[in-house]
Amino acid sequence: MRKQFRDLASPEEAREAIASLDLTPDAETVALEDARGRVLAERIDAELDVPGFDRASMDGYAVRARDTFGANEAEPVELDLAGAVHAGNEPDVAVDPGTAVEISTGAVMPPGADAVVIVERTEERDGSLVVYSSVAPGDSVMPAGTDIAAGARALGPGTRLTPREIGLLSALGVDEVPVRGTPTVGIVSTGDELVRPGEELRPEAGEIYDVNSYTIAAGVEEAGGVPKLYPHAGDDYEELERLLRRAADECDLVLSSGSTSASAVDVIYRVVEERGELLLHGVSVKPGKPMLVGTLGEGSAYVGLPGYPVSALTIFRTFVAPAIRDAAGLPEPRTATVEGTMATRERYAEGRTRLMPVGLVADGDGKTLVYPVDKGSGATTSLVEADGVVEVPADVEYLAEGESVTVHLFSPDVRAPELLGVGEDDPALSRLLDRVSSPRYLPFGSREGLRRLRDEIADVAVVAGDQGGAVEEIDAVELGSWTREWGLVVPDGNPDEVSGLADLVDDDDLSFVNRDSNSGLRTDLGNAVAALANERGTTRHELVEAIEGFDRGTKAFESPARAVAAGRADAGLGLRATADSLGLGFVSLGKQRVAVLANPARIDKLGVASLRDALATSDDAIAGLTGFERA
Amino acid sequence: MRKQFRDLASPEEAREAIASLDLTPDAETVALEDARGRVLAERIDAELDVPGFDRASMDGYAVRARDTFGANEAEPVELDLAGAVHAGNEPDVAVDPGTAVEISTGAVMPPGADAVVIVERTEERDGSLVVYSSVAPGDSVMPAGTDIAAGARALGPGTRLTPREIGLLSALGVDEVPVRGTPTVGIVSTGDELVRPGEELRPEAGEIYDVNSYTIAAGVEEAGGVPKLYPHAGDDYEELERLLRRAADECDLVLSSGSTSASAVDVIYRVVEERGELLLHGVSVKPGKPMLVGTLGEGSAYVGLPGYPVSALTIFRTFVAPAIRDAAGLPEPRTATVEGTMATRERYAEGRTRLMPVGLVADGDGKTLVYPVDKGSGATTSLVEADGVVEVPADVEYLAEGESVTVHLFSPDVRAPELLGVGEDDPALSRLLDRVSSPRYLPFGSREGLRRLRDEIADVAVVAGDQGGAVEEIDAVELGSWTREWGLVVPDGNPDEVSGLADLVDDDDLSFVNRDSNSGLRTDLGNAVAALANERGTTRHELVEAIEGFDRGTKAFESPARAVAAGRADAGLGLRATADSLGLGFVSLGKQRVAVLANPARIDKLGVASLRDALATSDDAIAGLTGFERA
Repeated sequence: MRKQFRDLASPEEAREAIASLDLTPDAETVALEDARGRVLAERIDAELDVPGFDRASMDGYAVRARDTFGANEAEPVELDLAGAVHAGNEPDVAVDPGTAVEISTGAVMPPGADAVVIVERTEERDGSLVVYSSVAPGDSVMPAGTDIAAGARALGPGTRLTPREIGLLSALGVDEVPVRGTPTVGIVSTGDELVRPGEELRPEAGEIYDVNSYTIAAGVEEAGGVPKLYPHAGDDYEELERLLRRAADECDLVLSSGSTSASAVDVIYRVVEERGELLLHGVSVKPGKPMLVGTLGEGSAYVGLPGYPVSALTIFRTFVAPAIRDAAGLPEPRTATVEGTMATRERYAEGRTRLMPVGLVADGDGKTLVYPVDKGSGATTSLVEADGVVEVPADVEYLAEGESVTVHLFSPDVRAPELLGVGEDDPALSRLLDRVSSPRYLPFGSREGLRRLRDEIADVAVVAGDQGGAVEEIDAVELGSWTREWGLVVPDGNPDEVSGLADLVDDDDLSFVNRDSNSGLRTDLGNAVAALANERGTTRHELVEAIEGFDRGTKAFESPARAVAAGRADAGLGLRATADSLGLGFVSLGKQRVAVLANPARIDKLGVASLRDALATSDDAIAGLTGFERA
Repeated sequence: MRKQFRDLASPEEAREAIASLDLTPDAETVALEDARGRVLAERIDAELDVPGFDRASMDGYAVRARDTFGANEAEPVELDLAGAVHAGNEPDVAVDPGTAVEISTGAVMPPGADAVVIVERTEERDGSLVVYSSVAPGDSVMPAGTDIAAGARALGPGTRLTPREIGLLSALGVDEVPVRGTPTVGIVSTGDELVRPGEELRPEAGEIYDVNSYTIAAGVEEAGGVPKLYPHAGDDYEELERLLRRAADECDLVLSSGSTSASAVDVIYRVVEERGELLLHGVSVKPGKPMLVGTLGEGSAYVGLPGYPVSALTIFRTFVAPAIRDAAGLPEPRTATVEGTMATRERYAEGRTRLMPVGLVADGDGKTLVYPVDKGSGATTSLVEADGVVEVPADVEYLAEGESVTVHLFSPDVRAPELLGVGEDDPALSRLLDRVSSPRYLPFGSREGLRRLRDEIADVAVVAGDQGGAVEEIDAVELGSWTREWGLVVPDGNPDEVSGLADLVDDDDLSFVNRDSNSGLRTDLGNAVAALANERGTTRHELVEAIEGFDRGTKAFESPARAVAAGRADAGLGLRATADSLGLGFVSLGKQRVAVLANPARIDKLGVASLRDALATSDDAIAGLTGFERA
C-alpha cells in the first residue's frame, strides 16, 4: 500500500526533511599526499618545535655576540676560526670565547654561539676571521620554535586543506591526516527504457541513453561525495529491489531518478516502507513535484529525483548537493551563485515555487543578463543551454525585464559563455565556432536568431536565405558572410532520377522531408515553390499540397538527409556539404548567403571579436569540408 | 662552469620565459565517469538523434489527430482501442484510422499516430475510447531529434566538463571522451637537511621536514596537473643527478626548490646545461630572486623555486601555476583573486617587485581588509597566516592605509577567516576556538594583541596578566574571561625542591627559561620579581641579573616547560595545565585573568559571535583539560 501524502510539501519542508537525514560518514585517516581538498576532523596541535633547533638564518660566522662589541670598519675584531657547520649536519665544534665557526643558512647554531655575523661583514685572513661589525645576541638566528612551537594550536577542526595547510602539516611531520569522511552516494537508475552510454541503443524500441546516472554522479563528486553507480536493472523489478537494498547497506545516501513505470515506484515504496521511512512524497515546486524523501533501512538516507535530466539536476542542485556538502564539511563554493538582471519579462503563475532554468550572457558593459531556457523539461540540450536556475517564489506572478535575480549555477565551474549566438545551423559555422573560446550557439533557425538579436539576448544572429525586410529592421553589424549550396538530398546515385523541385511536385511516389519554418533553407525552398507556381500559373498552396511531406519540418539541418540515408524518405531539404559528408546524392536548387549579424553594443566582447577574426581568416580547410564560399 | 646572468630578469621576462616552455601533454581518452573537470580536446558532434524516435511526452492515447477533429465535452468522439505501448518497448500495434493506442510517457509513437490525447481528456468505456478534446498533429509528441539532432554541434573543443556536459555526453551515448592531457609535474627536493614527513627527524643535526614537496604537489594538483614526487636524494649528488634526468624523461615540467648547498645548485646546472638550456637565473622580485627557468633535456621544462616555503608557494602561484593551467586548458578560477583595502600603511622601497604575503579579515561591514604578514620568509606559519600575495611594482614606495589592492590567493579555496584573533596563547582558548568556524588565531602575546586590536586589524585580542593602563586606552568590548594558574614548571617530583621565585634568585645552579616580553605570563613574572625586590629592599634589575636565563624569552607557551622536560633547564615559566599535560612538576606563583576583548564594530561578525557563545557555554570538559576557571 502506498502511503498517502495528500498535500504537497513546501520547498522549505523538503529542505528540512533532507536536513533531518543523517548522511555524515565516519571520519577517516588519509595520507598527507591525498589530503588536499579534504576537511580536518580534529584539531592538530604542534608536537614539535619548528625549527627544532636554533638556526642560522644567513650565511656567515657563528660567534659570541659579546666578542664583537665595538667592531667596525676602522677597528675590526679578529677571532680564531674553529671550524664549520653546514645545514643538515650536527655541529662537531663549539664556539668558545674569542672564536668563530663558519655557518651556512639553515645550519644548527653550535654550542656557545648566540649570533651570526653575515659573511659580507667579515674577511678570512690567515686562518682567522676579521669581523667588521658588531652583532647583538640573536642577530641572524632563528630560535627553535619560532615558526611553530610545540604545543601550539596549528589547525582547527573543519579546516579545508589547501596547499598552504598541507605545507604546515608537512612542517609538523604529519603524514597521516584525520579528515571528515566523504559521504558515499549510491545512484540507482530505474527507467525500463534506459541504456548505459557505450552500450547499443535500440531507438525503435524506445530506448534512450541514461543521462541522469552520470550527470548526478558528477554532481555528487563536485559536492564532495563519492558516487557509486549501481547496475541498471531495466524491467527486472526483483533485481531493482535487490539493488536498492544493497545500495542502502553500502551508502550514506541513495538517489534514484524517476521512472515512467508505476511498477518501479511501487518497488521503491516497498523497500522504503519495509526497512525505512518515507518522510515526504511530492513537493510544491516546478519541476520536482514527484520528489521522494525518506530512509532506506537503518544506514541510508534516500531521495527520489525526477526523471527528466534538467529537472533531476535542478532538484539535485537545490536540495541534495547542499546536504552532501554539509555531510562532507564543505562550504558552498563562492562561485555557486551569480547575480544578474532579467533580459526579458517572464510570466509565471502556477501557485508553486518555480525553479526556472536560465542561461547567462554578458551585455556590452560586462553586466550579466539572465534569460529563461525552456524547451520543456524533457530537453536534454537545455542542460547545456542553461547555466543554472532562478528560484521564483510561488506568489510571484512575473519577473520584469531588468529585475535583479540570483542564479544558482548548476556547477561552481559553470561560467557564462563568451559568445551567445542564435540562428541558422551550418557546418562551416560549426567549425568557425571551434576558434572561439567558450561559445554557446543555439541552432534555432534564422528567424529565431533575428528575434533574439532584436530582444538583445543574443550577441550574434546567423541568418541564411531571404528574410524579407526582417534583417533591415534590426540594428546590427555584419561580422562576415559566406555562401552555401542548398537543394535536395537524395539517395546515393539518385535512383529516382530527381532533377529538381518539379519532380517532387509531379511524382506522387516521392516522399520528402522538410526543415521547420525557422530555417533559412525552408524560406528559400518556399520562395522556389512560389516561383514554380508562378511559372505554372498556379498557387503556391497547390504545389505544397502536392509534395508529400512538405509539412514534415525537422529542426536540425542534417535530419532530412539522415531520413533519406535511413530510407525513410526519397528526398530531403539540405546542403551539398551534408550530402557529401553522408555519402548521399544531391540536386542543387541554388546558393544562399549566410550572414553573421552582431548586436552593435557587443562588438567588443571577446567572443564576438574572435568570431569576427575567425570569419576574416577562415581558410580552404573549412571550405573543403563544408562547401563554405566567401560571399 | 655556471652560465653568467649578470642582470636579474624582470617579472615580465620571467613570465615570458615560462610561457615559452612547452608543457602541453598529448590529448587522451578517458571514460565518461572520469571526465568531470577535464577539458574537451575536440569538438563533439551528435552522431544520433535524441530522442531517437518520435516520443510521447505525456501519458494518454496515441491517435491520428484528424480522427479527433471537432471533439469536445458535449460531443466526444469514440475510437477503437487497438492496444498499448510502454516506454522501452517496440510498438507491436499501429494506429489505423478510427483507432487509438494507450501510450505512456517516453514510449515510441506507434505507426500511423501523429498526436497524443492526454489521459485526463479521455475515458475508457467497454473497450473503446471516448475522447473529449481534439488534438492537432504533433500535440504531446516530441519528434526524434528535438533534443539534439544527429549532425549538430554538441560541445566545442576547450569545453570544461561539468555535470551538465557529462549529461549531454551521456545522452549522445558517448562513454569515452577525448580530453586535453594533464601535465605531469615532477618535484625533486634538493636540501641536504630535508626529511620527508612521517620519517624520523634529528633536529640536533639540523634536520627539518620537507615542506615544499607536498605543498607544491598540492598546488600542482589544484592547477590541473599531476604531481610526481621523486625520492629525496639528501646529500648524494650523483643520485640527485640521476633523479633529475629521470624526472626530465618522465615529466612535462620538473620543479625543484632551492637548496642551501652550492653543490646541489651545481648539479642542477650540470643537468640543465648538458641536455637542455638555461633561460634565466634570477628575477628582480622579492621573494624569488634565485628563480631558475630552463629546459631539462628534450621533453621537459624546468623551474627552480626558492627554498623558503612561503617564497616557493608565492613563486609557484605567481609564475608556475598559470603555466600549468594553460597547458591543461583550464581558466584561472574566478576565486583566485579578491579585492580589498590595506588595513595599514606599508612602506617598501627596494627597487624590485615585491610579492607581499598578506592576510585577509572582514571589517564590521563585511569589507575585506588586507594586512601584511611578515615573520620573515623563513616562517612556515606565515603559510597559514597569509591568504595570498599582493604584487607591489618596483616603483611603488608605499601602500597607503585604505588603498585598494588585488590579492592573489594561494588557492582558489582560500577564504578569509571568520574570526581573526591575536594575543595570548592559552590551552583553554585553543579548545574554545574549536567551536568557531574558520578562526585564525595569532598567538603573538597580549601586547601584540592589544596593538592589533587598536590598529583595527584583529577582531579580538586575548589579554592575560596586568597590562597596566593599556587595556583601558582601547575601545573594546569584553566577550568573556577566565583565570589560569601560572608559575614555575619544574621536573617531575621537583628534584631541586624549588618552592618559589626566591629560589631562582638565590640558587646559582638553577637555570631558567622565560617567555618573551609580549606574553602576559612574562608581565606578571616581572611584577612578581619587582615585588620580591621591594620586599628585599633591592632593585628589580639586581634580581633579574641573578636569575640565569631570565632573558631567554621563548615565544610559545609550552616552550619553557618543554625545555625543562628535555633537561635543558631546571625551571620554566608556564601554566599548571601545561605542567600537568607534560607530566612535570609545578610551583604556583599565582592566578591571572585572561580576557577576550573585541572590536566593538565587529561584534556582529559570525566568528566573533560564535566565540562569545563558546565563552558563555564553556564547560567542565574544557576546565578539566586546561585549568580554565570562570573569572
